[in-house]
Amino acid sequence: MNIPQSSFKRVIIIGGGFAGIALARKLCKKEFQVVVMDKNNYHTFQPLLYQVSTGGLEPDSIAYPIRKVLQGYPNFFFRLAKVLEVDTENNKVHTTIGELKFDYLVVATGTTTNFFGNKDLEKYSMAMKTIPQSLNLRSLILENFEQALLTDDYHEREALMNFVIVGGGPTGVELAGALAEIKKGILPKDYPDLDTRRAQINLVQGSDRLLPEMSEIASKKAEDFLEQLGVHVWKNVRVESYDGKLAHTNTETTFETATLIWAAGVKAVTLEGLDGDNLVSGSKRLRVNQYHQVNGYEHIFAIGDVAQMELEAYPDGHPMMAQPAMQQGENLGENLVRTLTGKTLKPFQYRDKGSMATIGRNKAVADLPRFKFQGVFAWFVWMFVHLYFLIGFRNRLVVFINWVYNYVKFDREARLIIRPYKKQYKTQLD
Amino acid sequence: MNIPQSSFKRVIIIGGGFAGIALARKLCKKEFQVVVMDKNNYHTFQPLLYQVSTGGLEPDSIAYPIRKVLQGYPNFFFRLAKVLEVDTENNKVHTTIGELKFDYLVVATGTTTNFFGNKDLEKYSMAMKTIPQSLNLRSLILENFEQALLTDDYHEREALMNFVIVGGGPTGVELAGALAEIKKGILPKDYPDLDTRRAQINLVQGSDRLLPEMSEIASKKAEDFLEQLGVHVWKNVRVESYDGKLAHTNTETTFETATLIWAAGVKAVTLEGLDGDNLVSGSKRLRVNQYHQVNGYEHIFAIGDVAQMELEAYPDGHPMMAQPAMQQGENLGENLVRTLTGKTLKPFQYRDKGSMATIGRNKAVADLPRFKFQGVFAWFVWMFVHLYFLIGFRNRLVVFINWVYNYVKFDREARLIIRPYKKQYKTQLD
Repeated sequence: MNIPQSSFKRVIIIGGGFAGIALARKLCKKEFQVVVMDKNNYHTFQPLLYQVSTGGLEPDSIAYPIRKVLQGYPNFFFRLAKVLEVDTENNKVHTTIGELKFDYLVVATGTTTNFFGNKDLEKYSMAMKTIPQSLNLRSLILENFEQALLTDDYHEREALMNFVIVGGGPTGVELAGALAEIKKGILPKDYPDLDTRRAQINLVQGSDRLLPEMSEIASKKAEDFLEQLGVHVWKNVRVESYDGKLAHTNTETTFETATLIWAAGVKAVTLEGLDGDNLVSGSKRLRVNQYHQVNGYEHIFAIGDVAQMELEAYPDGHPMMAQPAMQQGENLGENLVRTLTGKTLKPFQYRDKGSMATIGRNKAVADLPRFKFQGVFAWFVWMFVHLYFLIGFRNRLVVFINWVYNYVKFDREARLIIRPYKKQYKTQLD
Repeated sequence: MNIPQSSFKRVIIIGGGFAGIALARKLCKKEFQVVVMDKNNYHTFQPLLYQVSTGGLEPDSIAYPIRKVLQGYPNFFFRLAKVLEVDTENNKVHTTIGELKFDYLVVATGTTTNFFGNKDLEKYSMAMKTIPQSLNLRSLILENFEQALLTDDYHEREALMNFVIVGGGPTGVELAGALAEIKKGILPKDYPDLDTRRAQINLVQGSDRLLPEMSEIASKKAEDFLEQLGVHVWKNVRVESYDGKLAHTNTETTFETATLIWAAGVKAVTLEGLDGDNLVSGSKRLRVNQYHQVNGYEHIFAIGDVAQMELEAYPDGHPMMAQPAMQQGENLGENLVRTLTGKTLKPFQYRDKGSMATIGRNKAVADLPRFKFQGVFAWFVWMFVHLYFLIGFRNRLVVFINWVYNYVKFDREARLIIRPYKKQYKTQLD
């Protein structure tokens, strides 16, 4: 793949997410040859995908060209490629564009949606882990309302306006809040000839509280906020099947819906050749030690959501969020630099900066290490933190302007069906 | 399609482009029931499509939800539909979502790319008339460079970096300028491991000057500007065939290229049922009189690019630009309102406000009715005019910010392959 030989050691980083980019930035001025591979030519700011789906932000504002991150560093290379297999014997990766030897390999492939083997769910429900998926969901939501206008069938219309979000983590909570605001602020104006009060937003959570990774008070407040916005929150309910029209759960409750959004689980994106004892069953995460080394390998590391570092305080690994990913990337970068001069390596220490979720206009919940708060102030902090961690000045500015505009005008102008989504929903319920 | 009966006369407008929207706005507070149909739920600001293709603007900034234009007017309806046929006997349209009767029908369907029946050209070349097409071109341009990095075949690499734009009208000229600026400002930084000086931008024009609709001095200056930017301008050359690799022309010149952009002709988007004597041969435009009535019909009108009003000053109809389209929409709207009170109709008079084209940073050409000028001032006027005619405050603001950013930073950050374009180019030249 035309990467020149170099006297520096070659680090291959697979994945340009939070972890991979943080690592790359640490190595940029050091004596390494760094090859970043990603199947996209951009970094995705995943925490804001739900705003793309709901027409609040343009997709390009939460994406950033990876080549631009690496600009100006002569020992940096980017390759648009998918890694197929790791040859651990010969320290080589096999990719869609050929093979390449490495001195150090860093797996930062992140996670993908986990349908837990349910093929129907995978086929009929919508995921929201990538920008194209978010755009598909945006198209589908808008297409549903266009279709609801046309039908005289009561059941069909109800199903088209019934949204079921499965999974009460941050993604589900934030998406439910955004949909509720669309229902209130935009639908009645855009569809005066449709009784949009009948639109339903259901948030289905398998356990007994929303945002289970956050504090009890955050969970409680998030639920209150959602109910104020008219979202139906279903706790201790698990969706077990969905055929494109009807969702069955573990309870009596069923949902007739044209739109089921699956945000109820993720699994690591694994690579052939690294399977086996290293994988945590279920999540498929790679077990790593405190130096991010994948168990059994000296020169293969994993960072970010794909890695599971089992410490006393985090027996199931760190939370799958941007913060641990970035800190892991930085720590690994520092340690690799230390190897250049034979210095002792620093074991990874996670500095928990807290977590937060926004529910809607003026409504957010925040758990900081010393301080938990909810409401308007949390909402401002949430916006500030997200702007801060977005990559690129232009992205920050455009996102900021969109937020101010949306706030002042109670609007979301990116409600565009740029590419129609070919939906599976049948126009007639049998 | 669930449009209620009304005591007002029903006007069906097919197409939410410049003409259709201008007409709709004139009718919004009047005693008409207005049904706007479009196959997209948004208005496209076509003059800026080339900036989407070249990563300078986000697609959502040049699109505007049609429903938002019509918000707040109870007698206005939008339907996402494609019109299949006009039943002129019964005053009805047949569409993908059913049929509907009209009192007045306004055809504002615009134009589509004209490949003049050449199937290979249609299959292998890129068009740039819609937002998805512009995004496909954006993806392809970026994919080409990623692919050029990987090949050791000299011919293949040259072909991947060789861009051929066919058609020297405003679209071709503006796209060539933008590509030349990318070559200069971005490629060397993004692809340090590729000899991007070898990238070629060819602009092929069938006649003896660029921008044939503009003044001689504008043509001359546009050509000078392009050559300063390193674009190869080929005049009196017509591309006659392209098989995805090799383009033959009417001269000795051939082009080995992976990317041929076809901006050399348009034809009207016609409707079944309106064919026959009304169509101009070749362009397929509908002949209309000075009241926009399609020849032979009293209640069927055509406005915008699809219409050809043959006046002494414009024997082949008005130029296919936003200005005539908007003015026609406004004139027809006023006349329809006049019919309500039995007032005399006003024949259409085109007020030529001039035309302009931008070539690149600080470089544009402008022909105003009393004043022709080129260079920095024309470039500022071009930007001002385009911002002014963009629909929506948010779009204007976001476009403005992107322009300022791109200007100050010599950058274009939307160089994202959000959806890969499945290209036809074979990786091996036979």
